Amino acid sequence: MQDTTRLAGLIQERINDTVARHRERLEPLGPDTAPLLDEAIGFLSGGKRFRAQFAILGYRAVRGLDIDGEVDAEFGAVLDAACALELFHAAALIHDDVIDRSDTRRGRLSVHRLFSALHSRGGWKGAADHFGLASAILLGDLLQSWADELMQAACDAAPDRGWALRTREHFNRMRSEVALGQYLDVLEEQRTLFAEHDVQLERSTRVLVYKSAKYSVEAPLLIGAALAGANEDQEAALAEFGLPVGVAFQLRDDLLGVFGDAEVTGKPAGDDLVEGKRTVLVTLARENLPGTQQRIFDDLLGTELDGDQVAMMQRTIRESGAVDQVEEMITRNVDRATTAIGRAPIRENAARMLATLAERAARRTA
Amino acid sequence: MQDTTRLAGLIQERINDTVARHRERLEPLGPDTAPLLDEAIGFLSGGKRFRAQFAILGYRAVRGLDIDGEVDAEFGAVLDAACALELFHAAALIHDDVIDRSDTRRGRLSVHRLFSALHSRGGWKGAADHFGLASAILLGDLLQSWADELMQAACDAAPDRGWALRTREHFNRMRSEVALGQYLDVLEEQRTLFAEHDVQLERSTRVLVYKSAKYSVEAPLLIGAALAGANEDQEAALAEFGLPVGVAFQLRDDLLGVFGDAEVTGKPAGDDLVEGKRTVLVTLARENLPGTQQRIFDDLLGTELDGDQVAMMQRTIRESGAVDQVEEMITRNVDRATTAIGRAPIRENAARMLATLAERAARRTA
Repeated sequence: MQDTTRLAGLIQERINDTVARHRERLEPLGPDTAPLLDEAIGFLSGGKRFRAQFAILGYRAVRGLDIDGEVDAEFGAVLDAACALELFHAAALIHDDVIDRSDTRRGRLSVHRLFSALHSRGGWKGAADHFGLASAILLGDLLQSWADELMQAACDAAPDRGWALRTREHFNRMRSEVALGQYLDVLEEQRTLFAEHDVQLERSTRVLVYKSAKYSVEAPLLIGAALAGANEDQEAALAEFGLPVGVAFQLRDDLLGVFGDAEVTGKPAGDDLVEGKRTVLVTLARENLPGTQQRIFDDLLGTELDGDQVAMMQRTIRESGAVDQVEEMITRNVDRATTAIGRAPIRENAARMLATLAERAARRTA
Repeated sequence: MQDTTRLAGLIQERINDTVARHRERLEPLGPDTAPLLDEAIGFLSGGKRFRAQFAILGYRAVRGLDIDGEVDAEFGAVLDAACALELFHAAALIHDDVIDRSDTRRGRLSVHRLFSALHSRGGWKGAADHFGLASAILLGDLLQSWADELMQAACDAAPDRGWALRTREHFNRMRSEVALGQYLDVLEEQRTLFAEHDVQLERSTRVLVYKSAKYSVEAPLLIGAALAGANEDQEAALAEFGLPVGVAFQLRDDLLGVFGDAEVTGKPAGDDLVEGKRTVLVTLARENLPGTQQRIFDDLLGTELDGDQVAMMQRTIRESGAVDQVEEMITRNVDRATTAIGRAPIRENAARMLATLAERAARRTA
């Protein structure tokens, strides 16, 4: 646990250094760019850092790394890869919040809302909302390119060119898959009707796998492992562990999106219900409901719900048995992952820490 | 000129291959992703390819390259770098059109409008406009990551690691600068009042330099040259040529944004006036106008102008003498570039072609 605290500090430090370095280089563009660069730091100062942690453990699964020691070239490269994932994730979240029309993130205003507030406060010309949107798109683009630079720096430091290539392969696949997974998620919300249960469950699962499970756990693990020179068996074992952990991670997210405490998640209560997300949880709940209740449920999902309506839908979902089903799925996936990691040809110490991190990812409250 | 036609074909072919390769890899995500992947090809089938051409000439300024010969590993790497710039540019334009609320691009619907039309045609749930916005953000993100992959592939093929590092340095700087330059451009449109002339001209020039001149000409040239192993003197000479060409390129864009033929540019006539862009042209025009006319001009700029009003503003700008001033600036910049390239320590053949391409960039009608 002490490890984790030190690592979190090192990651934050490295992110701050990265932004500061860019800031210095971009000085010729003048002081008007300050709000965007300030927010780069502001936004990057929060988050659970799951992706960075999985990347570092992926590395440690294959090679020893003294994370209590000095940050030498090797350790620095691992931190660069981990920070690259956090920067990429920040970019994705900033765009995601625009797409999902989310007003808050991590308990503060989302980036587009923040810049639209800046516009309003300044009494500027034009539409404040649109300025917020433009700024969020551009900050996301900027962070995406910085993420890429850091990943490159990590790869450049790799002692073997093949390791670097493989690391980038995982990173590249991850980027494409998450963009398309996100598109499928948005597409799902536009459909007038739910599909027949099996088809709908397949679609919801596909979004869960590509938009989240692979992106949040499997890919970071494989990126870390490849950077350490993992062989095929090691990569396969880590994927076998990472995918179910990612699934559990996102199923927990589905539950938090409906039942999460706004104080802890930093997102409004029942957020997924208002947004009309067709998560696995929601899909299972609908299937369990009798016809009349299902129609009421469908009519309410994705509308501007008041507090009573949110509470009513929460009750309906719970009473449908879907929450129990999802909790069981989480347990099953964590078990599968634990079994996989127990027999994985990786360093024992790392296997233990991975099992612990998997539990944390699956049982979190935010 | 025959060179150019063959190159254009090779570039298009390589872009198509790239998209096809990604498409195959992303097949597991299912057929619903097709519209996004189709549009990747659709959007990438047009454009003037100035960036690709400057990158290839940057390379040829330093090393011989038989562009009529077979596409071997070396030529392939140069094409990858050139295509990376085109993909990045496509991503930037897709986001740019959202930010500028542009309905058309290259004579067809812009990406966000295209996806919002898809939504409307399908009679889907939710807001068509917002679906268009979400799709455009995600397609831009996707293409941005593909651009990065291609640039990486180009760098991986470089025979010298230092050359690869330098190439990426230019690419990285370019990406940050264009995002911030774009932010400054948007910021400018939000200001209630024009600043005092000197300050305003400085700001408009800064946007012109970072959002366009460096991005469209100087950076592509330096990327190509670095990939060929340019030394410091060669890079300095190419920058000395590239920046004024880029300035001329964008000043021409300012003129086309006000006076361009919609049939040729693929953008509505007087587009910049409706958007309220504070270009160098507009800034000079205002300064030349007497007080009353200036106030009318300011009131109209950035509003929904009808055809008569556009014509009136065009006349005002022309009669103010600003068009002549900008034409003179273009000529002066092209002259400066031609002088620089004449004495540059680069391959003579390439110098001649660069001078021709500079003329084309500065005198184009679209």
